[in-house]
Amino acid sequence: MTNLLPDWTQFTLKEKIGQMIVVRASGYLFDHQIRYPVWEASNPQLSHWLATLNLGGVILLGGSAAELLLRTQQLQKWSKTPLFIAADIEEGVGQRFSGATYFPPPMALGEIAKSDLKLALNYAYKMGKVTAKEALAMGINWILSPIVDVNNNPDNPVINIRSFGDTPEIVSALGKAFIEGAKNHPALTTAKHFPGHGDTSSDSHLDLPLISHDNQRLESLELVPFQAAIEAKVDSVMTAHLLINAWDQQNPATLSKTILTDKLREQLGFQGLIVTDALIMGGVAKFANSEEIAVQAVEAGADILLMPDDPEIAINAVYKAVESDRLSVARIDDSLNRIWQAKQKIFNHQNKTISIYQLSQTEDRETVKNILKDSLKTSKNLPLNVASEELKRNLIVVDDLLNADFLERQMPAFTIPNLLGYDLQLVDQNTLNNVLEDNRETILQIFIRGNPFRGNAGFSEVCKKSYHKVFEKSSIKGLIIYGSPYILDWFKTEMRLDIPWVFSYGQMGESQAIACQTLFNLSAAQLREMSQNLGDVFI
Amino acid sequence: MTNLLPDWTQFTLKEKIGQMIVVRASGYLFDHQIRYPVWEASNPQLSHWLATLNLGGVILLGGSAAELLLRTQQLQKWSKTPLFIAADIEEGVGQRFSGATYFPPPMALGEIAKSDLKLALNYAYKMGKVTAKEALAMGINWILSPIVDVNNNPDNPVINIRSFGDTPEIVSALGKAFIEGAKNHPALTTAKHFPGHGDTSSDSHLDLPLISHDNQRLESLELVPFQAAIEAKVDSVMTAHLLINAWDQQNPATLSKTILTDKLREQLGFQGLIVTDALIMGGVAKFANSEEIAVQAVEAGADILLMPDDPEIAINAVYKAVESDRLSVARIDDSLNRIWQAKQKIFNHQNKTISIYQLSQTEDRETVKNILKDSLKTSKNLPLNVASEELKRNLIVVDDLLNADFLERQMPAFTIPNLLGYDLQLVDQNTLNNVLEDNRETILQIFIRGNPFRGNAGFSEVCKKSYHKVFEKSSIKGLIIYGSPYILDWFKTEMRLDIPWVFSYGQMGESQAIACQTLFNLSAAQLREMSQNLGDVFI
Repeated sequence: MTNLLPDWTQFTLKEKIGQMIVVRASGYLFDHQIRYPVWEASNPQLSHWLATLNLGGVILLGGSAAELLLRTQQLQKWSKTPLFIAADIEEGVGQRFSGATYFPPPMALGEIAKSDLKLALNYAYKMGKVTAKEALAMGINWILSPIVDVNNNPDNPVINIRSFGDTPEIVSALGKAFIEGAKNHPALTTAKHFPGHGDTSSDSHLDLPLISHDNQRLESLELVPFQAAIEAKVDSVMTAHLLINAWDQQNPATLSKTILTDKLREQLGFQGLIVTDALIMGGVAKFANSEEIAVQAVEAGADILLMPDDPEIAINAVYKAVESDRLSVARIDDSLNRIWQAKQKIFNHQNKTISIYQLSQTEDRETVKNILKDSLKTSKNLPLNVASEELKRNLIVVDDLLNADFLERQMPAFTIPNLLGYDLQLVDQNTLNNVLEDNRETILQIFIRGNPFRGNAGFSEVCKKSYHKVFEKSSIKGLIIYGSPYILDWFKTEMRLDIPWVFSYGQMGESQAIACQTLFNLSAAQLREMSQNLGDVFI
Repeated sequence: MTNLLPDWTQFTLKEKIGQMIVVRASGYLFDHQIRYPVWEASNPQLSHWLATLNLGGVILLGGSAAELLLRTQQLQKWSKTPLFIAADIEEGVGQRFSGATYFPPPMALGEIAKSDLKLALNYAYKMGKVTAKEALAMGINWILSPIVDVNNNPDNPVINIRSFGDTPEIVSALGKAFIEGAKNHPALTTAKHFPGHGDTSSDSHLDLPLISHDNQRLESLELVPFQAAIEAKVDSVMTAHLLINAWDQQNPATLSKTILTDKLREQLGFQGLIVTDALIMGGVAKFANSEEIAVQAVEAGADILLMPDDPEIAINAVYKAVESDRLSVARIDDSLNRIWQAKQKIFNHQNKTISIYQLSQTEDRETVKNILKDSLKTSKNLPLNVASEELKRNLIVVDDLLNADFLERQMPAFTIPNLLGYDLQLVDQNTLNNVLEDNRETILQIFIRGNPFRGNAGFSEVCKKSYHKVFEKSSIKGLIIYGSPYILDWFKTEMRLDIPWVFSYGQMGESQAIACQTLFNLSAAQLREMSQNLGDVFI
């Protein structure tokens, strides 16, 4: 590393508080590429903050693996103190940064665990190991995963398939295996969202959900995977913006001393970093003003304030709280001690990392394919009739055309049906109602999953009606769903599916290749014979 | 540079021939990101070729600016002899590689030239200068532009707005200014497609177009901009896959000695590199087998064979032709001399290039915005009624959803109408027919332009009928067209447009911001007031 870790005890109080802040920035190199201008500071602003505020770190979103490498080098140069560089990589680094290995969502492993726990544990371990290895190759040193929320509410719009499953046993075991895998490399891991975001039907990005279970239920279900993660020596725990009535009727978990200090630090004995979820999220931002949120989070026990809307305001608020004895210097120093322990793990290490050119190793990509195959659900095949001259339609419906990075020309969801004579029609859910009547033989491919900030799991009543009508008025011969198993359940129940169907947890090219091959019962050899255009990439 | 330019006279004959080959590769770092598996070799194949065949260079497509930098460094390491690295960057580097400056299509400059030639020349000079500066920053040393074809056929599906205009005077002047601008930096320029691809109504990527004009017409029109480019000391000329009856009734220009040697070398006195257009293109690939094409191209006078389907086959074929005295060693050495002249310009230079972090300078982005503003066409504004509670629709039609990199969540074509209460409906032309009836007040935004490999300018008869019906059955209150002015002409004539409309040559975010601001008559201040979400990026 170019920057050596200095002695934090020499920092001024404001410099110490700066280390407790992680700001959001775009992973792209240039300001004109910023996707979220409200949250992502421009480069002049960001470089000024890093040069003057002694910030703890940066959380990045956007850009490819190559861009991230150049970006993290730039950010580290802008800062005197080595930075935490964090990212929400929950499904492998490739989920966020193209080029790296893109794993299926955690729930795919939970699916496998139901029938073969040992195999699923092996996959979770590899997923942690590969994620840590690839994150470090591009300068990311803090992995904001695993999610150890137990997704026991099918209507959960925000956790959904990001969770390992719906029982504390499976989530604990897989979360632990992920953490142990990641420990092969000096990147930090994070168990989130404490004390458990699985049983909510609203999204804390937009509002403050309420959990009304009693203490016994919380301890026997929600807390179990966090205990397991702590036993596995997870480096950090991220707080949830949730109101947990049984423990604190006033404050969201993020701002609750009862929850962060009494429960997490003392009862569960967690010695690592407590990091808040993003402080700009609706669930906490509606609760108080920026100054009060920053001070209360530290008071509650947080070591790191993630994405305050303005780092200077947050630093000054905490500084004033110390000056006025609302917070003690010892409280700040405790956090700095923990921050330094984490930074020493990252930076004072003979870091034998792979080069950027070594991402996406063949064996890691094979692991991805195996997870996809082992978690695939299917009914029966569609009898192939390639020779038919009949007009056929490949109707693809996506939940959001502007948030669909699996839409690339060479993707198997287009190319394989195309080889079999199906013409592509690609629409989003809003337009689905317009394409009801079409007498061509049709296969329907739906890409839909829960995602943060969506507010619902992407499956509205209007949308359900449209699907009912599409099934009545079109000639749907086969169905593939990519993403949410809860949507598959809906189709199975509501449509009494008797056509051939396939379900894949993943949405990436590999998922598409496996799902289409399965629907049409094609071997890799048949595919290769049909077209060299497909290359070997997805076969 | 790490690799020093060796003495080519020490090469074996096969090594010399290797220098005459430029192969295609993906600009992405990893094989699983390859978009065109038929044309783009895998990394093991490519590194093997570069290590063993002494190839002249690589042409890259795909990836961001950051990826390109890492990619070109990797390729140069794989080769003992410093490589040409070429790219089809006709609209600034940002057209192909995100992050860099993205200029409007050349015809926007031609539009400005009609009323203010001096201003247009100034823009063309800057476009050349910025393109060369940014190309070198990411390791691209051979710019495959300017296009100096005179686009005097509105039905031309492939040149279209990629040309500077429809008169030889304007094309000559702007092409020359671009070349002179580029000469500020040691990157090669290319005048293309010799002897002129402007008056065709079919696409040489798919077929071999025929030009049946006589010699006098060709010399007084098509050749004029090439003469101008040669006077401006353009580094290379790219051949066209066209049959020019007046000069050679047998061979496409790419394979014609009469055209490449007699016309270009001797009559026009061009001393630089003659490079073929891609040899895998339908226009020439249908003409003969790979061996014969390679030999004939060299025989005709080409120095560089671009994208032969297999470089080993091409090298061996040319090698055999020398062995059998069909080609002379002197002919090969002449090409090597020219190749070395070009490589010396690139590599034996104290290359003071900018760093990758310095792409997209504010002043260069201002130039882009000014070109867009100065080439905008418009009728009248749409009276604003923001307060209205009426349901309103922002209907966006794109020619191809899988080839639409302007489709990003933060783009002004979505965000500005959204601020004014318009709901997005995004469809491609295939689905247009399904969205005819909708009684909401609608603005229609169409993204359409000619692109290689499309076969037509993207505007089929079916499509025209759909637009007729959309205008009859929906309540279209305003229209924006991004891309082809020929499509605007169609709407003006066929629809007798009396609604407010705006036309922009560009399709990128800046175009969208300027066009939407113009349609709704919004000032930058009004926009900023309406939402901080827009940031300053596009305002």
